[in-house]
Amino acid sequence: MAVYTEISDEDLDAFLEQYPVGRALSCKGIAEGVENSNYLVQTETGPLILTLYEKRVNPDDLPFFLGLMEHLADRGLPCPLPVHGHDGRALRTLAGRPAAMVSFLAGMWPRRVTPHHCDRLGGALARLHHAGGGFAMRRRNALGLEDWRPLFDRCAGHADGVHPGLRAELDTALMDLEACWPAGLPEGVIHADLFPDNVFFLRNEISGLIDFYFACTDVLAYDIAVCLNAWCFEGRGEFNVTKARRLLAAYQAERPLSDAEMAALPPLAQGAALRFLLTRLYDWVNTPDGALVRPKDPMEYLHKLRFHRGVKDPGAYGLA
Amino acid sequence: MAVYTEISDEDLDAFLEQYPVGRALSCKGIAEGVENSNYLVQTETGPLILTLYEKRVNPDDLPFFLGLMEHLADRGLPCPLPVHGHDGRALRTLAGRPAAMVSFLAGMWPRRVTPHHCDRLGGALARLHHAGGGFAMRRRNALGLEDWRPLFDRCAGHADGVHPGLRAELDTALMDLEACWPAGLPEGVIHADLFPDNVFFLRNEISGLIDFYFACTDVLAYDIAVCLNAWCFEGRGEFNVTKARRLLAAYQAERPLSDAEMAALPPLAQGAALRFLLTRLYDWVNTPDGALVRPKDPMEYLHKLRFHRGVKDPGAYGLA
Repeated sequence: MAVYTEISDEDLDAFLEQYPVGRALSCKGIAEGVENSNYLVQTETGPLILTLYEKRVNPDDLPFFLGLMEHLADRGLPCPLPVHGHDGRALRTLAGRPAAMVSFLAGMWPRRVTPHHCDRLGGALARLHHAGGGFAMRRRNALGLEDWRPLFDRCAGHADGVHPGLRAELDTALMDLEACWPAGLPEGVIHADLFPDNVFFLRNEISGLIDFYFACTDVLAYDIAVCLNAWCFEGRGEFNVTKARRLLAAYQAERPLSDAEMAALPPLAQGAALRFLLTRLYDWVNTPDGALVRPKDPMEYLHKLRFHRGVKDPGAYGLA
Repeated sequence: MAVYTEISDEDLDAFLEQYPVGRALSCKGIAEGVENSNYLVQTETGPLILTLYEKRVNPDDLPFFLGLMEHLADRGLPCPLPVHGHDGRALRTLAGRPAAMVSFLAGMWPRRVTPHHCDRLGGALARLHHAGGGFAMRRRNALGLEDWRPLFDRCAGHADGVHPGLRAELDTALMDLEACWPAGLPEGVIHADLFPDNVFFLRNEISGLIDFYFACTDVLAYDIAVCLNAWCFEGRGEFNVTKARRLLAAYQAERPLSDAEMAALPPLAQGAALRFLLTRLYDWVNTPDGALVRPKDPMEYLHKLRFHRGVKDPGAYGLA
């Protein structure tokens, strides 16, 4: 949930005048995304999503994100399509913040993930990787391997207060990954944050892939590793190999994994678990009491990290 | 901002099947209202507002609220119209809570209130009072004069911690009102919470009156007193008599006030200020750190209360 910035009706009217979308009929802050302020704007020509980029997004990255959504949407991916103004620009300023509007996508994200959802996710992720192939811009992953150690250093002192022994456990996991991080794997555009709340379904088919604000150029199989973490564990922490098998099989039907990519899945999955564990830990120890956004519990990802560290063979993920 | 309850897509589909509205295309939690969970549901037949009633609403009151909205909408007021299911019922259960859907109203609430807004508000309030005349149900004001003392007693011990001397000042104001509260004034249906965020405007005309969850049977002029507090003060606490004059003149063009109602405005306005001061004070001292909803500052209403206690003549509100 996140609506940080209030927009006056006068400011909204002046903003919309710069786009060929008609006038605003309503504008409601919506509980979607945690980094930015999002509004569902009903205009005379239909619904749109208006996003105000808050301080955690680097404005210099916005042309990459907006350009990528447009590139993917043009290639048939169900991504939000940025709306261009009369002057051709998609990005401008509203209420003192960078702002853009994108197309409204029907559908709802699955509150209860099923193996069927994982199947559809796998196919969509492979198509996203294919479609991203021709995208000319590059963006470094700002939360990749080299960023984890500095992030850990900034919250290590609080780790044992969250869970006894956490500091040493994370230090060991991080050293192991720094020593064995896979190299030479196929790279390209990855979403890097494809959690269930970023994937809309309508009538059991994918109708939207949203929130490209962590997208970057990185190892493609790392995106799979993020999804294994985000989609294939049950509420009590059990790994659901059926979901993983469906996800991987559907992915491979569109983009077969090389032997090297398959072999790299366990460390990539450890890395993905560590990445979310570290950002959640950082938010957990740095969020002031009374903040509007309640930080997510980092412990969920400690259990996932431990699972992946116990995986000796990628067959554990249901690879045939 | 308030979305407390998550709705699964399966539960939503099953819920919508009971109404003649088609299937859901999307469902987004919206930052509207503070007492309940509100969703903007795009259905195959158009947008609707879905409300899940959280624990601060007494389920026994819901037939009054829904019946009133229907009564007013039928009489041409731009109120949300409850949607009836195939079985005729507007109220049922979703995600373990009482739930109802109402029509979507276009428009946005004014972030910067102008005298023009106050003019339109005054007329709409008088029409609401007229239209409520034929409504057969009654509901006691649960935040009326007799309820203020018990509410004060529950937070009096914390009052001086919020502001030195606040406890004695509130006690005096309350005693004064208990001694001189006007009697015998015209009663009827009042909204009782008609703040700017409950009034939508589109192209400078009122397009929606929402959030009837404090509506009750009480003194009509008390509703005016609530609006004087909520619409006619500037950001730094100055009373804007131009706004009040426009509000009262537009109200009286549709429903002239009796001499007794005019004379009662100062104590009614003190009472309205005290009512919001007390509920804000209660929330202020009872909201746990880290709560999702940040309580509103009670001090704003202390300044308003002091203003109204200084009013010797209703002419101060711009009455001709």
